[in-house]
Amino acid sequence: MLKGIAASAGVNVAKAYKLEAPVVVIEKKAGEPVEEIKKFDDALAKTVKDIEGVKERAAKRLSEEELAVFDAHLMMANDPEFAGQIKSMIENEKVNAEYAADTVANQMVAMFEAMDNDYFRERAADIKDVTFRLKCNLLGLQIPDLTAIDEPTIIVAHDLTPSDTAQLNEWVKGFATAIGGKTSHSAIMANSLEIPAVVGCSGVLEAVQTGDVIGLDALDGFVYVNPDEEKVKELEEKAARYAEEKEALKVLVNAKSITTDDHEVELAGNIGGFKDVEGVLKNGGEGVGLFRTEFLYMDNDHFPTEEEQFEAYKQVLEGMEGKKVVVRTLDIGGDKKLSYYTFPEEMNPFLGYRAIRLCLKEQDIFRTQLRALCRASVYGKLCIMFPMIATINEFRQAKAIYEDVKAELIAEGVQVADDIQVGMMVEIPAAAVLADEFSKYADFFSIGTNDLIQYSMAADRMSENVSYLYQPYNPSILRLINMTIKGAHKNGRWVGMCGAMAGEPYAVPILLGLGLDEFSMSATQILKARKVVTSLSYAEMQKLADHCLNLDSAEEVLDYVKSVVD
Amino acid sequence: MLKGIAASAGVNVAKAYKLEAPVVVIEKKAGEPVEEIKKFDDALAKTVKDIEGVKERAAKRLSEEELAVFDAHLMMANDPEFAGQIKSMIENEKVNAEYAADTVANQMVAMFEAMDNDYFRERAADIKDVTFRLKCNLLGLQIPDLTAIDEPTIIVAHDLTPSDTAQLNEWVKGFATAIGGKTSHSAIMANSLEIPAVVGCSGVLEAVQTGDVIGLDALDGFVYVNPDEEKVKELEEKAARYAEEKEALKVLVNAKSITTDDHEVELAGNIGGFKDVEGVLKNGGEGVGLFRTEFLYMDNDHFPTEEEQFEAYKQVLEGMEGKKVVVRTLDIGGDKKLSYYTFPEEMNPFLGYRAIRLCLKEQDIFRTQLRALCRASVYGKLCIMFPMIATINEFRQAKAIYEDVKAELIAEGVQVADDIQVGMMVEIPAAAVLADEFSKYADFFSIGTNDLIQYSMAADRMSENVSYLYQPYNPSILRLINMTIKGAHKNGRWVGMCGAMAGEPYAVPILLGLGLDEFSMSATQILKARKVVTSLSYAEMQKLADHCLNLDSAEEVLDYVKSVVD
Repeated sequence: MLKGIAASAGVNVAKAYKLEAPVVVIEKKAGEPVEEIKKFDDALAKTVKDIEGVKERAAKRLSEEELAVFDAHLMMANDPEFAGQIKSMIENEKVNAEYAADTVANQMVAMFEAMDNDYFRERAADIKDVTFRLKCNLLGLQIPDLTAIDEPTIIVAHDLTPSDTAQLNEWVKGFATAIGGKTSHSAIMANSLEIPAVVGCSGVLEAVQTGDVIGLDALDGFVYVNPDEEKVKELEEKAARYAEEKEALKVLVNAKSITTDDHEVELAGNIGGFKDVEGVLKNGGEGVGLFRTEFLYMDNDHFPTEEEQFEAYKQVLEGMEGKKVVVRTLDIGGDKKLSYYTFPEEMNPFLGYRAIRLCLKEQDIFRTQLRALCRASVYGKLCIMFPMIATINEFRQAKAIYEDVKAELIAEGVQVADDIQVGMMVEIPAAAVLADEFSKYADFFSIGTNDLIQYSMAADRMSENVSYLYQPYNPSILRLINMTIKGAHKNGRWVGMCGAMAGEPYAVPILLGLGLDEFSMSATQILKARKVVTSLSYAEMQKLADHCLNLDSAEEVLDYVKSVVD
Repeated sequence: MLKGIAASAGVNVAKAYKLEAPVVVIEKKAGEPVEEIKKFDDALAKTVKDIEGVKERAAKRLSEEELAVFDAHLMMANDPEFAGQIKSMIENEKVNAEYAADTVANQMVAMFEAMDNDYFRERAADIKDVTFRLKCNLLGLQIPDLTAIDEPTIIVAHDLTPSDTAQLNEWVKGFATAIGGKTSHSAIMANSLEIPAVVGCSGVLEAVQTGDVIGLDALDGFVYVNPDEEKVKELEEKAARYAEEKEALKVLVNAKSITTDDHEVELAGNIGGFKDVEGVLKNGGEGVGLFRTEFLYMDNDHFPTEEEQFEAYKQVLEGMEGKKVVVRTLDIGGDKKLSYYTFPEEMNPFLGYRAIRLCLKEQDIFRTQLRALCRASVYGKLCIMFPMIATINEFRQAKAIYEDVKAELIAEGVQVADDIQVGMMVEIPAAAVLADEFSKYADFFSIGTNDLIQYSMAADRMSENVSYLYQPYNPSILRLINMTIKGAHKNGRWVGMCGAMAGEPYAVPILLGLGLDEFSMSATQILKARKVVTSLSYAEMQKLADHCLNLDSAEEVLDYVKSVVD
């Protein structure tokens, strides 16, 4: 029996498949530059094709958001700077291609890893993943093909890369990895795929051979190697109980999100594109609370045309069958860049030129998106929201451009729905504080907690030394949320939340009590949240929320909520 | 007659001195590396000495803060990377030193200027200033010595560099420059030195010769070249009227800062070190509202010792003659770096590891400062404040370290004052929103408007594309200030403000009405602010402030205040 971290809930017993990556040995040899460059170009082309293949297979099971990692890999593999450095090393030093690729990649990895910052470390991981594939292709080594698994299997590995997790099929009944934590990539993927997973289980590689029977208890974080009959029975019973609980949630798919004292709210899903719509409906989503349109721009090599966007929005609106769809206009900049657009160099990009700030200056980009949205509006129930609004003047300007685009379309004889709601994200402290004035103009608000917390605390959560300040439960954050909700209700507007907080079991009671109208989250969180909502009394949660607003710290808030609802 | 921008108030008539920098022509020549490197080393050493000399002369008239530009120049000149690049170019390309210096500097300037960002542009200006001096030294060219001016003079120039303004003596009765705006370096310096200045006066270089008589009307922004007798008389009368007004302000030096209906506030000065104390007292400052201790660290090549700090704090406390001195503990990080300490690479340093966040981790640095402060406390009236506090836990931790240091000193038999107040900056939105809870623990607050506005608006004011969001008069900012003041008063604490806003003539009426207790500003702003305060009714300003809190935009607020007080 080995102990690890339960990272994705579930229990299963199945045969082990030990994932062992090929051992890549790089030797420095003399090489004829012309030949080596040819070898390199071929291997790189195959690498790009491999990644595209993995992405395509992965697209069947993963959301747009989760697929973004492959875009990062493709960008890396297609980066002329990267290939250029390797080729000039081949030319100047007359060495073999794999040695040059390895050396250049190691330098880049070392540089990124030296930066004390999660963002750069992710880039380092991207380079490693791409270069590993490239080196295997150069050396003719086979990377194990997980898609070939065709019987119930539990994978055991040191760690799973994005490429690995993307290839997991329905036969994979769980995995156990030697490293990783609750927020590591493999853990997030396991949750999204609803595959049980135990991570950070050191010693698992040594203890397990392919063909062993594995009992994976990913509810409590245990891995049993070749368990006896009794243990197998025990695990099977545990699995059955867990399946029952999950099944019980399914009865909530078509239920209302209503408290014990008849207060109704709306539980919606966040999506990155049409392919996420099915998951929202299947999990009982009452609408889409956030459609992140930036993937349309980031997955592209040009600004998407009006026609391309129109098709994408129409598909989603139709797919949601008349349920409300909140589309966020382009939120680019900060850490989200485009390969075909140059952003200014800024010392603090999170405090810089992004989202609505960019759209108000680059009005052509903005108008194209608004035209596509207005045209698609007749296919469903559309709400448009502007990101990163800081002042009422900005909202008025953005709204005026929308009105102008709409009038232009109507003049052209194009049909535009007359019930489009136009609202805004509340993710900048200034907007939360002035919500009662903003709500004279905006039809609705959606609170983006990730940014709201970062700005309110003046702390970039990607920066390791200050990530402790990312405190959703801090009373200051709860007060800003409260101001937003009360400010909106003063003028009869509704308020949603589309940040990570909206689906957290201990946040839902507080948000409910504060009067939040719509909770938008990952599709897989919806049913659990509905269970929480339907078990609570609105009147009591109002009292709970009031109490939380006057506590001193996030710890006190969390302790108090647990003491009331657990 | 030429029109420009009145950048520093005053009127004078005097002879012109046209500042013409030597024309530097760089030719590429072959050079013997050993000789050229020797030449370069000598010229660089002289450059360092020159800058040190300029700084020393400037120190007589400029504040610590204004002198910081020379530290940037010295850091540049002493940067081994800079010298190293030039030397390797001399060695590798066997060229003359001035050509290598020019080429390397131009590359660096181009790189910094390409970044769309004021901060990097300042660095580019530093390189230009230092390299110009270096090239003159290499070529044996004399840089004009402004300290030699010994009769009443008005300087006419394309622009004045920091080195130039630092050399202006009492004979300089004003200056006119062809370029620049109200916030350019030369304008800020002119205000600080109280020298009349017209900037952005294009054509002035062509119209004026050394020896011409200049009538400088820096109240309305006019430059008269060889004015006739009538015009001279008119200007002299205008100068006399202005002098009278200034004189009238002087009667306020010892006056109380009290409204027409007997509400008293405190007007204090911001300082960077002991040499700024005299200016505060001379201008009627009732205390020091912000002593920025980071200069002690930045003007140094090591962390200042306890003894060095003790002396510095003692000097200031004694110098202020028992008046209150609010000392801010080390606020480093963000854009303020130290040559002898390595900060982590961060994507958004303004949202990163700085100020109290650093002091709570690097407790040795923090304890040394707190020991020095406690020891100095017996020499005056000390208030200690912690910068960048975001959560109550952080304040409690910092306060606990202070208590521990104090107990340690007392155990050592050292005397520590028993009336030290321990408070905090309110410059992070979360702290403003939760001020009523923070005020249970902190003895006082001081609002730092620059950062508070940046974080509340999620906009770096150094970034050109979003600098429009730096809006002190936005009602959201006024509300955060109001929450801070009301939250403090709930628990009987006082609130100061030490940001740029505290001294602005149209901000003072609002802040007064909101109940601000202490206004801390540049020494030269104090008397004007006192005139404003003594002319207003507190009861009316309370009404004015209430009205402003419910307006929509900064423009509306400013228009309203002007309509009431002008």
